[in-house]
Amino acid sequence: MSKNTDELFKNVIAHAKEYGFVFPSSEIYDGLSAVYDYGQFGAELKNNIKTYWWKSMVQLHDNIVGIDSAIFMHPKIWKASGHVDGFSDPMIDNKDSKKRYRADQLLEERIAKLNEEGKTSEAEELQIEMDNALKAENLPRLRELIIEQNIKCPISGTANWTEVRQFNLMFSTQVGAIAEESDTIYLRPETAQGIFVNYLNVQKSGRMKIPFGIAQIGKAFRNEVIARQFIIRMREFEQMEMQYFVRPGTQKEWFEKWKETRLKWHLALGTDAAKYRYHEHTKLAHYADAAYDIEFEFPFGFKEVEGIHSRTDFDLSQHQQYSGKKMQYFDPELDENGKPYGNYVPYVIETSIGLDRMFLLTMINAYEEEDLSTDEKQDSRTVLRLHPCLAPVKAAIFPLTKKDGLPEKAREIMDTLKLDFNLQYEEKDAIGKRYRRQDAIGTPFCITVDHQTLEDNTVTIRHRDSMKQERVAAADLDKIIGDLVSWKNLLK
Amino acid sequence: MSKNTDELFKNVIAHAKEYGFVFPSSEIYDGLSAVYDYGQFGAELKNNIKTYWWKSMVQLHDNIVGIDSAIFMHPKIWKASGHVDGFSDPMIDNKDSKKRYRADQLLEERIAKLNEEGKTSEAEELQIEMDNALKAENLPRLRELIIEQNIKCPISGTANWTEVRQFNLMFSTQVGAIAEESDTIYLRPETAQGIFVNYLNVQKSGRMKIPFGIAQIGKAFRNEVIARQFIIRMREFEQMEMQYFVRPGTQKEWFEKWKETRLKWHLALGTDAAKYRYHEHTKLAHYADAAYDIEFEFPFGFKEVEGIHSRTDFDLSQHQQYSGKKMQYFDPELDENGKPYGNYVPYVIETSIGLDRMFLLTMINAYEEEDLSTDEKQDSRTVLRLHPCLAPVKAAIFPLTKKDGLPEKAREIMDTLKLDFNLQYEEKDAIGKRYRRQDAIGTPFCITVDHQTLEDNTVTIRHRDSMKQERVAAADLDKIIGDLVSWKNLLK
Repeated sequence: MSKNTDELFKNVIAHAKEYGFVFPSSEIYDGLSAVYDYGQFGAELKNNIKTYWWKSMVQLHDNIVGIDSAIFMHPKIWKASGHVDGFSDPMIDNKDSKKRYRADQLLEERIAKLNEEGKTSEAEELQIEMDNALKAENLPRLRELIIEQNIKCPISGTANWTEVRQFNLMFSTQVGAIAEESDTIYLRPETAQGIFVNYLNVQKSGRMKIPFGIAQIGKAFRNEVIARQFIIRMREFEQMEMQYFVRPGTQKEWFEKWKETRLKWHLALGTDAAKYRYHEHTKLAHYADAAYDIEFEFPFGFKEVEGIHSRTDFDLSQHQQYSGKKMQYFDPELDENGKPYGNYVPYVIETSIGLDRMFLLTMINAYEEEDLSTDEKQDSRTVLRLHPCLAPVKAAIFPLTKKDGLPEKAREIMDTLKLDFNLQYEEKDAIGKRYRRQDAIGTPFCITVDHQTLEDNTVTIRHRDSMKQERVAAADLDKIIGDLVSWKNLLK
Repeated sequence: MSKNTDELFKNVIAHAKEYGFVFPSSEIYDGLSAVYDYGQFGAELKNNIKTYWWKSMVQLHDNIVGIDSAIFMHPKIWKASGHVDGFSDPMIDNKDSKKRYRADQLLEERIAKLNEEGKTSEAEELQIEMDNALKAENLPRLRELIIEQNIKCPISGTANWTEVRQFNLMFSTQVGAIAEESDTIYLRPETAQGIFVNYLNVQKSGRMKIPFGIAQIGKAFRNEVIARQFIIRMREFEQMEMQYFVRPGTQKEWFEKWKETRLKWHLALGTDAAKYRYHEHTKLAHYADAAYDIEFEFPFGFKEVEGIHSRTDFDLSQHQQYSGKKMQYFDPELDENGKPYGNYVPYVIETSIGLDRMFLLTMINAYEEEDLSTDEKQDSRTVLRLHPCLAPVKAAIFPLTKKDGLPEKAREIMDTLKLDFNLQYEEKDAIGKRYRRQDAIGTPFCITVDHQTLEDNTVTIRHRDSMKQERVAAADLDKIIGDLVSWKNLLK
């Protein structure tokens, strides 16, 4: 991260707090690591991102429906999905400092150092050794590599290491008051399984025909060892996932379709296409036969925002096995031989987007410290150039002064608009200062009510991006604002 | 619960499952007690209830903003709020059956039985004794009462009881991978505390002036000992809470205002006013100086749907004490003596509604098994008379037949509407059958495309409640549907 981008990122974080977008959780108690709260404008922006996703995925596709499954699920689900046994990081403790580290990260750091020192072939060799050990889940071998490389704990300075152990990333809790019946359950580490276990309930009650999709927005939880980079990696986060159920053999074509569709969704917001790229997974997860990430260029480099995964029939087959319930779909349509396709376990294409990352991306992308200096004077403003559909506040209404009936007139105009839009009313400080405050939260329009308004019912409307002002009839405001913030602009 | 209302309730639960509103969680694994998932129509209905609340509370009040705080919070917050020490039920185990019971519920059952047997004075006496023991948290006395009454375990049939112990209702989990730093945290049992600990962040970043409110919708978790009555008492549930910060001394007037405002919100949905009543708390919680419930008449009797509580300055003062951070607001306005009110800890009025209960209320209230029999034939339908703003699907589009270009024409009309409304397309079965399926999920309009449509671009539109059909121009559909489902009908 260069000094400039580092500073930009810091400024965005500071801005997010100062203007009520994101607060550190439990701040008055000195915070809770890797947990954040969304403030009054953050909550609106987040809701608008959710709405954009839900409308695009559910409302616009008559073969996709949305559900809302619980965070608590039967513990066997996580056995079937592989999370109980496989969703873990290899950890190693230094016996002197008592500090715990991710074994693979200690090795990654060593590899980076070797590369820095120009020892590229040594680095490459270590990379291969480590990858092999990870793939084979050979934990003693990981430890051996750490010892061989003479990696030391940065705190104690010793190489007095414990064994490497797997540390599961799922949070667990005890449910049930009756002692002998109390059970360990997990906070879901992904929302996808809530869709898989309900897929036949939805298919039957909704009379869905393959191909069809089930979408869901909801919280997930991971006990991240190293949680960092603001809201990029949190212990509590939110996902927007869609699982698309297809006939076996057609998964490649649907995978391609969703890969493209999802990138278009991002670009429709007006983001520079150069900021996005696809990243193909070369090491595939055990359930996947193809996987791409959509990456965005954050100030600290390209990072995954969304994953498109061809999950095969892995999850549904696992649930069939573990639950003992049939997970087959009956397909009455005819194949090329004129026979019904009949019963099969569908294949699944998943699109999974991290809502908090999407939120951060949107903030970073919108944030601009704009130099407005002229020959006469230095000037600047901080503006959030949010897409109008996503802006937390659609318009701010200002009486020019606090007297002469202007506040009353401003309120009267506000009343004609407030059923349609989220508005703000501000009467304090000079108009210029009020403009800047609205720029900082991304409000597309500022409407000023002045003495002329009392005469001819016109107002000035000031545009966030161009900072241009024009005089319009108050009666036209509903249409002017409505046209700009209409979801149709994004969904068409 | 009489046989009829019992049956009605059972029918609503069955309907909710059959038509994709509510599924038992993890059903293929035989379910998870007291946890439910919202299906494709349930998720839409729930979202619409959320939207109605958010628009009413946040969008329509320019001094109320909404936030979205995390489920995970610093554990000290629950110490300060009183939940660590006080949020528990008194439990007693039978040593023979190993079954655990709520001590107060065993006594309540006995009191009910005494009343049934006409021993009212004995019942009354026991009630007083129990209330005193509960109030004084005198657990040995609770046990004595159980022994004195010779209450036996229904499983073992013995009175071989353990001591009474407090059982905390909060779920806990371990956070942090580094062993010596891992910490017990709780899943929040209410969303309110997320508002209290952020109140100054919101007030400052949003330049809010008292009185102002902070609203929030979110999940909360309680390890209920006896979870029952479908989605009435769940271990994972959702709340819609608003905390209104006021000047000390004005809480009574604001309490009255919110009590009325919130009942109006319920009645605006068109619900029979006789189904609602206020219930005044006579035993107040430790933090309250006034409390009313809004109760709805469920098939099993009146039950709380929403609470309006005057919480005094209890929570903010507790957080001030536990965090060591000032929780005071500076009020620059002048009192009757011309002096600024200055620094104080605000008083708080809370409105807290259980979203899942509101959902169930809405389903029960809308559900009707309507007898349509005539002299000639027996007929009936099940219809959900949901308020059009809340209906999951706003309109269904049917081609009369699957040929003659009718499906294509229907799709074409659908494309003109789908950016505005959540729609369904159905071409299978006779029109009458399709009407009934839409009645069952509460769709206000069914639109049929027939051969005449191809000629003059008119369609038939059929109204859910009256079942009347009329012929209208396809071009008018957007306005006809839009007028009926507009939020303005609810928010005016």
